[in-house]
Amino acid sequence: MRFKVDINCDLGEGLGHFKAAHDSEIMPFITSANIACGFHAGDPVTMARTVKLALDNSVSVGAHPGFPDLLGFGRRYMELSQEELRNTIIYQVGALKTFAEAANTRLQHVKPHGALYNTASESEDHAECIIEAVCTVDSNLVLFARADSKMAMMASKAGLRVASEVFADRAYNEDGSLVSRQIKGAIITDPKLVAQRAVSIIQNKRVAAINNQTVEFRDAHTICVHGDTLNAVQIVKVLRSSLLDSQIDVEPAGYFV
Amino acid sequence: MRFKVDINCDLGEGLGHFKAAHDSEIMPFITSANIACGFHAGDPVTMARTVKLALDNSVSVGAHPGFPDLLGFGRRYMELSQEELRNTIIYQVGALKTFAEAANTRLQHVKPHGALYNTASESEDHAECIIEAVCTVDSNLVLFARADSKMAMMASKAGLRVASEVFADRAYNEDGSLVSRQIKGAIITDPKLVAQRAVSIIQNKRVAAINNQTVEFRDAHTICVHGDTLNAVQIVKVLRSSLLDSQIDVEPAGYFV
Amino acid sequence: MRFKVDINCDLGEGLGHFKAAHDSEIMPFITSANIACGFHAGDPVTMARTVKLALDNSVSVGAHPGFPDLLGFGRRYMELSQEELRNTIIYQVGALKTFAEAANTRLQHVKPHGALYNTASESEDHAECIIEAVCTVDSNLVLFARADSKMAMMASKAGLRVASEVFADRAYNEDGSLVSRQIKGAIITDPKLVAQRAVSIIQNKRVAAINNQTVEFRDAHTICVHGDTLNAVQIVKVLRSSLLDSQIDVEPAGYFV
Amino acid sequence: MRFKVDINCDLGEGLGHFKAAHDSEIMPFITSANIACGFHAGDPVTMARTVKLALDNSVSVGAHPGFPDLLGFGRRYMELSQEELRNTIIYQVGALKTFAEAANTRLQHVKPHGALYNTASESEDHAECIIEAVCTVDSNLVLFARADSKMAMMASKAGLRVASEVFADRAYNEDGSLVSRQIKGAIITDPKLVAQRAVSIIQNKRVAAINNQTVEFRDAHTICVHGDTLNAVQIVKVLRSSLLDSQIDVEPAGYFV
Repeated sequence: MRFKVDINCDLGEGLGHFKAAHDSEIMPFITSANIACGFHAGDPVTMARTVKLALDNSVSVGAHPGFPDLLGFGRRYMELSQEELRNTIIYQVGALKTFAEAANTRLQHVKPHGALYNTASESEDHAECIIEAVCTVDSNLVLFARADSKMAMMASKAGLRVASEVFADRAYNEDGSLVSRQIKGAIITDPKLVAQRAVSIIQNKRVAAINNQTVEFRDAHTICVHGDTLNAVQIVKVLRSSLLDSQIDVEPAGYFV
Repeated sequence: MRFKVDINCDLGEGLGHFKAAHDSEIMPFITSANIACGFHAGDPVTMARTVKLALDNSVSVGAHPGFPDLLGFGRRYMELSQEELRNTIIYQVGALKTFAEAANTRLQHVKPHGALYNTASESEDHAECIIEAVCTVDSNLVLFARADSKMAMMASKAGLRVASEVFADRAYNEDGSLVSRQIKGAIITDPKLVAQRAVSIIQNKRVAAINNQTVEFRDAHTICVHGDTLNAVQIVKVLRSSLLDSQIDVEPAGYFV
Repeated sequence: MRFKVDINCDLGEGLGHFKAAHDSEIMPFITSANIACGFHAGDPVTMARTVKLALDNSVSVGAHPGFPDLLGFGRRYMELSQEELRNTIIYQVGALKTFAEAANTRLQHVKPHGALYNTASESEDHAECIIEAVCTVDSNLVLFARADSKMAMMASKAGLRVASEVFADRAYNEDGSLVSRQIKGAIITDPKLVAQRAVSIIQNKRVAAINNQTVEFRDAHTICVHGDTLNAVQIVKVLRSSLLDSQIDVEPAGYFV
Repeated sequence: MRFKVDINCDLGEGLGHFKAAHDSEIMPFITSANIACGFHAGDPVTMARTVKLALDNSVSVGAHPGFPDLLGFGRRYMELSQEELRNTIIYQVGALKTFAEAANTRLQHVKPHGALYNTASESEDHAECIIEAVCTVDSNLVLFARADSKMAMMASKAGLRVASEVFADRAYNEDGSLVSRQIKGAIITDPKLVAQRAVSIIQNKRVAAINNQTVEFRDAHTICVHGDTLNAVQIVKVLRSSLLDSQIDVEPAGYFV
């Protein structure tokens, strides 16, 4: 059996005059684009253009909703009620879904952004709101969730299609959580090392933790690449070709989860 | 032949803590609700609640997109490019459409708000952007446009369903434009007079202008009632019963345009 | 010796088109106005007008900075870094200070709003940021802080003038914290009871807790009245006259702390 | 007599996560920094850091207020009332003034941004609001205004100190207005040519218009350099050294206007 994997990246994270740096260079090497929806970044013009850029590169589009916090780029936790959170997600996913349909494609997935992603990975209340919102908009959407997180497990149980997400350019703690960006070694920038870790995760479902123990993953459907790393374009190029060289098919998650 | 007319009102124009005053009292008497989409007013929770309130009252829901200007409530002209304007409308209509679908109903119509409505009534460039945006989202949507305005004519020509809108609680100039709110007599607050003008417009397609000449309308499908008039609830009650007493059917515009 | 007390209220909490309800009716009965600065509510025009309204009523003006969260009215906790929090407060206080000076008066005080006030009452990190920000702008400003809170104690220690704030229209727990708004009996709306509790707090430095035990206060310089209670105007009228009847002087906190 | 000139640049035009590109590289070569105030760009942290960066480079600080339009970067005209415009400017200038004072310096000047600058150059109503706002905050502030514009003349008449601003990296029309950015040749990117034009403007009070006629300037106190030109750092370096080589003193406008 051949392995399959998706490569995803957060794109369209500009805001009006402020442009996202490498979108057009990264797009050719990924298979799923998480497009900002206007609450942590993104705006109507950027969303329309990023959807078009994705289509021109045969990349599947997803909504990337975040907390309503432009100044904090959605990276600051905000205490929303469940009603606020659920509707905040429906709003953002709905807006991007409409841009996808306006461009004659379908929305493939939803990936929560930043502090929302992190919180929902471990908080059942937050995960539940996200799952309800996604089901409400379209129960055929794929939810991108951290591999083995609470949100991943709850979404599967709720009948949603889930893409288990792993990070090849980030160090892992032994318990499967990500090493905080504040700690040295948290971000891996050597393209070859990133690629090698990705291949190991997909083929062996395991990778070395920062303390040299081993982290195991039940599933790994999609690899996240960060577009704001300085050499992001180089990393994603090497990653993609290494996966292909290892006989791993690179396809949008919606095709196989 | 019996006449038919729709009664529409701008609703859901709160913002978080700031609540729109009379929504639940007005809703039982209207047939179409223009719901704010978050750019001039409205927010995800308010949108979800207002859609539900409309459904509970069998009122058809429409999107009410405006300029991105919370401080100015969308009443200040902003110089957007055509690409900005088109996508700004797609975004807002898409968000509300999703809330409608989430509540198991369909979006009936789009009515531009405030400065956007006024500008698009006379500016071909603005009207064109709005028409393109509406067609892009769903070409079966009804566009609410000022009776005999450029936007109304252009939208009809483009194949869109158009509801010609008239104002029973506002005075008209002889040329069919609305008397500016700055001028004395611009706003009509006597419920009986509002109702009488509405009946005249629907039955005779004409009404007295502020200078006592006569304004004629080619079509009149929907009557706008302003929810922020002090006695708005009283006005819409009397208006509805007067229309019914005059053998005019009161139905959502989507049923007959 | 005669007792002195200040009466404060949050005012100017409109936003553009959205008006704060009772500002002009409440202003004649208070001595300090906490004016919103544009982050949780308020805008440049509202700030200028509210400062003028305060001056016309000989009320001292203060800045009422909050989290940058219009949708949540500053009532939702947000995780800001210390640098973000400190500068967020300097910005807001600076803007209001400028409107005060433009109206030929001086800024008297700063009172943090909503979730920021609550958090800073107990969190040393948050209190420290607020104290630093106030000292930076003008070390002669008075900080309004919950009586016996960490922020009150830290600010005094740092050499700031502090007005210990008590709440006559809210129930207290035995430990001196406020009973949550979710709990029945948390909000006291009987004007006479509010006034009686205020007099007791000022004269005896104690009041009945919700469980009928007694809460004691080390100091009580200023009584907060909530402007959004339905009968707020009635409450503040009765409160003021009851204080005066009890031989308690009602003066701006800046005169005596 | 030696000539004197100021070099100014718009800085601090980031927004949270979105960083302004070249601020720290440009700062050493200019004498006045126009710092964004949070309405078209900028935020409390960026403002505090940019003021500090200016002080570290002995650069004078000014407020750079714009229309309340983050998505449009203040480059889109907005129809504000005079009361809205005046208070919008007082608010922004007040906030930046406070950051300047917090860093133990004084605010030197105010330069309106983008669409506000362009409109106020020719519209008396807009110019009047800006002049009133600046006088209200501090009548000793310098107003940066396009050389020979209506705003420059009105401000002088009103008793404000005015720095006449010229653009060395932009082509001029024969009537002294700037060639629109849409037109080829509008932006001059050759550092030597920019420098040569600047020297001509300062020494001869004239420069070639795009049609090879001559534009004359009554005054020229400050040269604007755009920080978002690709080779902005190179341009400002060459400009500064060319001015010095031509025996022109480069000093903050506040020293000599």
